[in-house]
Amino acid sequence: MSNISEIVNGSPTSVAGFTACGVTAGFKRSGAPDFAMLYSEDAANCAGVFTSCRFAAAPVLYDKEILSKPDARIKAVIINSGIANACTGQTGLENSRKSAALVASKMGIPADQVAVASTGRIGVQLTMDTLEKGIDLAIPALSCDGGNDASRAIMTTDTVPKAVAFTKEINGVKVTVGAMTKGAGMIAPDLHGLHATMLCFITTDIKADNDVLAEILEECAEESFNRITVDGDMSTNDTVLVLSNGRSNLEIKSGTPEAAEFKELLLITMKNLARRMVMDGEGATKFVTVEVVNAKTKEDAALASRAVADSLLCKTAWFGNDPNWGRVVAALGYSGAIFDPSKVDVFFGPLQVVKNGGDAGTPEADLVKVVSEKEFVIRCDFHDGDANHWIWTSDVSYEYVKINADYHT
Amino acid sequence: MSNISEIVNGSPTSVAGFTACGVTAGFKRSGAPDFAMLYSEDAANCAGVFTSCRFAAAPVLYDKEILSKPDARIKAVIINSGIANACTGQTGLENSRKSAALVASKMGIPADQVAVASTGRIGVQLTMDTLEKGIDLAIPALSCDGGNDASRAIMTTDTVPKAVAFTKEINGVKVTVGAMTKGAGMIAPDLHGLHATMLCFITTDIKADNDVLAEILEECAEESFNRITVDGDMSTNDTVLVLSNGRSNLEIKSGTPEAAEFKELLLITMKNLARRMVMDGEGATKFVTVEVVNAKTKEDAALASRAVADSLLCKTAWFGNDPNWGRVVAALGYSGAIFDPSKVDVFFGPLQVVKNGGDAGTPEADLVKVVSEKEFVIRCDFHDGDANHWIWTSDVSYEYVKINADYHT
Repeated sequence: MSNISEIVNGSPTSVAGFTACGVTAGFKRSGAPDFAMLYSEDAANCAGVFTSCRFAAAPVLYDKEILSKPDARIKAVIINSGIANACTGQTGLENSRKSAALVASKMGIPADQVAVASTGRIGVQLTMDTLEKGIDLAIPALSCDGGNDASRAIMTTDTVPKAVAFTKEINGVKVTVGAMTKGAGMIAPDLHGLHATMLCFITTDIKADNDVLAEILEECAEESFNRITVDGDMSTNDTVLVLSNGRSNLEIKSGTPEAAEFKELLLITMKNLARRMVMDGEGATKFVTVEVVNAKTKEDAALASRAVADSLLCKTAWFGNDPNWGRVVAALGYSGAIFDPSKVDVFFGPLQVVKNGGDAGTPEADLVKVVSEKEFVIRCDFHDGDANHWIWTSDVSYEYVKINADYHT
Repeated sequence: MSNISEIVNGSPTSVAGFTACGVTAGFKRSGAPDFAMLYSEDAANCAGVFTSCRFAAAPVLYDKEILSKPDARIKAVIINSGIANACTGQTGLENSRKSAALVASKMGIPADQVAVASTGRIGVQLTMDTLEKGIDLAIPALSCDGGNDASRAIMTTDTVPKAVAFTKEINGVKVTVGAMTKGAGMIAPDLHGLHATMLCFITTDIKADNDVLAEILEECAEESFNRITVDGDMSTNDTVLVLSNGRSNLEIKSGTPEAAEFKELLLITMKNLARRMVMDGEGATKFVTVEVVNAKTKEDAALASRAVADSLLCKTAWFGNDPNWGRVVAALGYSGAIFDPSKVDVFFGPLQVVKNGGDAGTPEADLVKVVSEKEFVIRCDFHDGDANHWIWTSDVSYEYVKINADYHT
């Protein structure tokens, strides 16, 4: 229907005019790639959404600063994994600033056209010599098919790299969106702003003013990264950046049919990555969609779906293939959402488990089959209005505990 | 200072005039005791606090109804474990009513003087023949030292029974409070009302009107059961009942020095049990006190301490003996509390880990020692006002996942 196609092995460098690379600078003890650069031949228009955590990390503060300038443009983004540069005070902020200046002077570009991002351990200062080594290795390594390497270099507890690109014809013009993301823990939606614990870098070849990019990015974030939760913890470093170089010559203005078409393309890209972040959630063995439908208000639907998606008791039950609907209704009940318990229906996949707030009588063996699947939907119908919400979540396994008892964020 | 002493092997039957027992009715497949009765020779004054979960269980609805009567009195309380009688609709409520009526007719007491409580699997109807068997076994088994048996019969995933009694002289009169509780999972404070997933039955020999009992009980609940969290999940069945038979002849009126003295006694009793519930938390290996001090408002302090106490990333770090303060500040940051990150200090036990929002430079080996203890305090100082809050919590271990993946609530 929507004439969107996925590019094989797609990544941010699937968009012409962008190059990237991933190198080993030395932030990770393992010797795995830990420094990525994304480069735009043109000074790209840009927009970003960031964590709403009060302890926002230095790179977040720095990027917000450069993006807030009128006519902000980005030519380079550097990302290190291993050190988050969060809770690092004035020194941390200075280090973010110096990192950008280093890239700028080595590449001969303006310092305020260099964005920075970090992920890894909180409270540790960036080791600037490691960072400089990364920059020196990265600049000559930039390549027009380096997006997948970059996606590997930004991983922390991720088990698989996550990059993608989609194309679509809009008004007869072929438009491309490429993106890469990292994130497997400290993942939670923030209903009031951003976000999931994650870094995401998006490239596209549309022509659009920064405010148009920002508007569409925020709408898409609300329906993708803000809808996922792995552990209910939000990070200090969440960052989503979109860069557009205008090479397609398709101009997107706010509120036009073209804007709607582009939003569809961007949303498919971001949902693809959001979904894969949940599937790669630390120790996750299940992908669960929690839907609340026919609630009185949007907020009731959001509170209720989030409570179920974040419930440790629900998540451990799913891990155990246990169709325990009691924990689902208990979570709905304490969510703060307003509804009439005696009208609530709950479905696990196609099977009704709760009817009018009580047992629907479906044989347990049938329900076990549904929750033993790698992926299923839990739908809660409040029969109380027409507001809906959904969240993607995962189960909590032994492996989750192991990863997080062993890993130093 | 406070001339309070603990009675050895104390329980609800440490208060003269109360008898109790625990028997095996057949609700649990294991054959373990699963039915308890608490009996007051006198028609006792009473008050209760209950879950604020919108899916409140039938026994909660029933008890609220009988307690709301003017001059409500309680002579008997029956508690079954194995079936929660939650999400059981009109039939469930009728079964609670019938249970009370059965006890009443067999004992020759008024039906509205019989309270009921249930814990166990949600969504299953009470098997009334099992219940009647329990009643028939319990009545002849009632004994003036049966409180500890009763505390064993109300356990579900609890690993140890939890009962206690304290005495204190008030105005030269010896007053006693006895209590028993169950609860090891589905435990979370509700800052807006009640509560932790738990059942608690308290006896005392003071003389007090129901509204005085209710007032003191609510104050004590706020500083005990509302301050604990194991998994952030609140139950459908939370119930705390206090019964007073007046046998000490000490009359307690609202707002008097005697009321304050009695509150101290009741609070010590409830804190003792709250603490033991956390220590017996499913799979818990650590007991952690999270304090937020010098916040601008009480609500900021509560939001911030709760976010840390409920953070899955913090709880798994504690399990791993990992002094990961990054996860603590991240949780403070997303808690919704308002504070200035650059003023935040954090202490693990006596050691400062965060100074002005950044690393305090304490050697990691020293911090590991603190978080390797079975019990420690995390204190977060906002330097922003004079409001304080604290919460007791536990870590999350492999065992937590195992228990909750295997157990059908």
